[in-house]
Amino acid sequence: MSTFEHGLADVTPILTRASERLASRFDGIVSAETVERVVFESYATLARSARITEHLPALAEHFAGDRLTALGQSRGMIPKPHPEILFVCVQNSGRSQMAAAITTLVAGDRVNVRSAGSQPGEFILPAVREVLSELDVDLAHQYPKPLTDDIVRAADVVITMGCGDACPLYPGKRYEDWDLEDPAELDVDGVRRVRDEIRARVERLTEELAPRS
Amino acid sequence: MSTFEHGLADVTPILTRASERLASRFDGIVSAETVERVVFESYATLARSARITEHLPALAEHFAGDRLTALGQSRGMIPKPHPEILFVCVQNSGRSQMAAAITTLVAGDRVNVRSAGSQPGEFILPAVREVLSELDVDLAHQYPKPLTDDIVRAADVVITMGCGDACPLYPGKRYEDWDLEDPAELDVDGVRRVRDEIRARVERLTEELAPRS
Repeated sequence: MSTFEHGLADVTPILTRASERLASRFDGIVSAETVERVVFESYATLARSARITEHLPALAEHFAGDRLTALGQSRGMIPKPHPEILFVCVQNSGRSQMAAAITTLVAGDRVNVRSAGSQPGEFILPAVREVLSELDVDLAHQYPKPLTDDIVRAADVVITMGCGDACPLYPGKRYEDWDLEDPAELDVDGVRRVRDEIRARVERLTEELAPRS
Repeated sequence: MSTFEHGLADVTPILTRASERLASRFDGIVSAETVERVVFESYATLARSARITEHLPALAEHFAGDRLTALGQSRGMIPKPHPEILFVCVQNSGRSQMAAAITTLVAGDRVNVRSAGSQPGEFILPAVREVLSELDVDLAHQYPKPLTDDIVRAADVVITMGCGDACPLYPGKRYEDWDLEDPAELDVDGVRRVRDEIRARVERLTEELAPRS
């Protein structure tokens, strides 16, 4: 039995400080105990799939903050002025990332958008970054995230892409499944085709949900 | 856009009752709000990987109960009379399931044991069930579970098998990596060989941690 050389450092102090910051931000909305659990579990779940571990504590704090916002929204304690769209694919490294970015590009702040994966991948596909950069969309701060209960709960519309059975069904939401090719199996031209297909669908969806005034 | 035919039913009432039962069981140890979050997030995370959805709410309640026990243990509010061993592999469908079952077989209640996967599989491998049944070990009530922060926290010894980088590192624990073949890539004879290798390692480990009196 060999001593185990470990890829991750003890991040307890960093995550404890992140929990304190978020507990202060969500004071009166979510208890400090729940905040701490969401932060540490966000870290653990991102650590399971992420390839690059260097920025994991910062990503975990960001992800936890968004999950807590979603929780506050679903409890009616944080206002949700715009329709919330959730895109879910398997890895959150291609289709759902493109859909979320294009939704923001197309509809701006007429809607809010989140994305997630049923089996989050290690990184966003380079070809996806490339075809979005052609639309001047930068995914630098995006990363594959697992589908969590809090995020589903906050959504008004859930669009699944290749992972329908993996998403909890809650009443009062609109669920749709979009049948799209998987960018992981395509060359750049193929990914560009999926991007344009997503853009056409997103334009229809956002125009329906939140028409231009 | 087609209406989405969904594989999962709305389980909110079932999970709400499960949350109430667990909140009562963990009263004074974990807040009702945190219990509810652990139950619903356990459901969401199992739904992402499980192939059979029929028993998911019951599995989610069981998994949440074990996670809350682990949380209570790591906070010193639930006694932990024996060393706690955690086995982690990629899918929690082969190696770590065998190791956990064999540990119970070999060491009985001299130790407690848990297992988890960094990318939980859809089901436990049939060949793994078969070679364990040859030892009169029944995995009927076992299922692949994701590696969560609470379970890592409660462990005294963490044994990783093919997924070292995916496991958070906390101080005061013993980490070891066991280099074993992946049963998913072996025939039954190969799985039997891995089982016997695991048994030899488990006997050494448990004799060291908790010698027979």
